[in-house]
Amino acid sequence: MSKLNWDYSLYLVTDRSYIGKRTLADCVKEAIKGGASLVQLREKTASSREFYELALQLKEITGAFSVPFIINDRLDIALAVDADGLHLGQDDLPIKIAREYFGKNKVIGISVSNVQEAIQAQEEGADYLGAGAIYATGTKLDADLVSLAELKKIKEAVSIPVVAIGGIKKENAASIMATGIDGISVVSAILAEDDIYTASKNLKTIVTAKK
Amino acid sequence: MSKLNWDYSLYLVTDRSYIGKRTLADCVKEAIKGGASLVQLREKTASSREFYELALQLKEITGAFSVPFIINDRLDIALAVDADGLHLGQDDLPIKIAREYFGKNKVIGISVSNVQEAIQAQEEGADYLGAGAIYATGTKLDADLVSLAELKKIKEAVSIPVVAIGGIKKENAASIMATGIDGISVVSAILAEDDIYTASKNLKTIVTAKK
Repeated sequence: MSKLNWDYSLYLVTDRSYIGKRTLADCVKEAIKGGASLVQLREKTASSREFYELALQLKEITGAFSVPFIINDRLDIALAVDADGLHLGQDDLPIKIAREYFGKNKVIGISVSNVQEAIQAQEEGADYLGAGAIYATGTKLDADLVSLAELKKIKEAVSIPVVAIGGIKKENAASIMATGIDGISVVSAILAEDDIYTASKNLKTIVTAKK
Repeated sequence: MSKLNWDYSLYLVTDRSYIGKRTLADCVKEAIKGGASLVQLREKTASSREFYELALQLKEITGAFSVPFIINDRLDIALAVDADGLHLGQDDLPIKIAREYFGKNKVIGISVSNVQEAIQAQEEGADYLGAGAIYATGTKLDADLVSLAELKKIKEAVSIPVVAIGGIKKENAASIMATGIDGISVVSAILAEDDIYTASKNLKTIVTAKK
C-alpha cells in the first residue's frame, strides 16, 4: 500500500478494554464501514504471540477494505505482519532504528505533545504526527495535555499530516478540526459505543465537513 | 560472535526487581567476572525505549567480556542492538518469524516445559532450549513445573543444548546438572545476592565440576 495520499481524517486506535464481549475484528470492521480511514492496533497487555495473532486478524480486515493498518510501538510485530505503518511514542524505539528495519516505503508516525517534539519528529523522518492528549482520557491518564492553540501551532510548524488524539468525541470534534489538522484519532468514541458503525459514521461526517 | 561453541554453563537472566539501588550494568559485570557465561536481558515492565537503552548498555559490557548477549521476547530490541541471541517463550513470536528477520547466524532459544515442546522447538530450528520451571519462583509464579526426571528426558530427546531454569540455587544446582543438561539459568541466585561476584563464582564452581 503506497504511503502517499493516505486519508488521515478518522483514525481508529484500538483498546480491547472498551469492546465488552464483542471481538476486536468485528468492531474494527464496523468502524471501517462507518468511515474509519486508518486503524492502529495498540496493545499494552497482550503477550507478543497474542499481539501478533490480533495483528494478523486486523491486517486481513483492513486489507480487505484497503484501509492502512498501523502497529503501535512494536516494530517486530509490524515487520511480522507486514503492516503499512508503525506508530511510535516518545518512550518507544527511536525512529532512526525503526526506519532502518521497517523501510522507507512504510509509514512511521510519532506521538508529540508540543511544537519542539513535532519539528524534531519531522526532521527525523516521521510521516505523520499524533498530537495530544487534547483532553485527559481513560486510555492515557498521565498524558501531557495539548491546548487547541498549541495544536494549531504544531500543525503550522510542520508539513506532514497531523492527527489529534485524546478525549476526542462528537461534541468536540468540529472545534478540534477547526485548528486545521488533518484528522482525529479516537478510541472510546468509537469502540465504547454500542453501535460502532453509527458512531464512526457520525464522526466521519463531522471531520469531513470541516476539511 | 559465532554461535558455535557457546558456553551454556551459567546463564544469567536479568530482573531489576532484585538489584536494589545497584545498576543493572554493574551487577551484570560482577556476574560475568564471577563466571556467568551468557547474559539475557529480560524486561517485562520497561518501555521500549528503556529496554533498548538497557540493551545498549549490556551489549557493551557483554561484548567487552566476549560473553554472548541475549534479548528476551523482543525481536525488535534484539535487532536494534545487534544482540547475539533472542530468547522466545511459548507466548512470544513464532520462531519462524523471528528467524526470518534475525537471521540464521544468530542464536534463538526457546522456553519449553515438556518433551513434546522440546522436540517441536528443535524441529523449528531452536539453537538451545530453556527448560523449566524446575522449581516455582518469584519471577514466574505461574510456570509449569518440570521434574528432574522430565528434565533428563528433555535433554535426551534433543541434540541442542538444554539449560534448566526456575528456582535454581547453589543448594540444588549439582543435582540439576546431574541430569546431563548443559547449564543452569539463574536470576535471583545471583542478582539478589549482596556479593554478586562470589555468588556467581560459587555457582560456576558447581556447574563446572559436574560437567
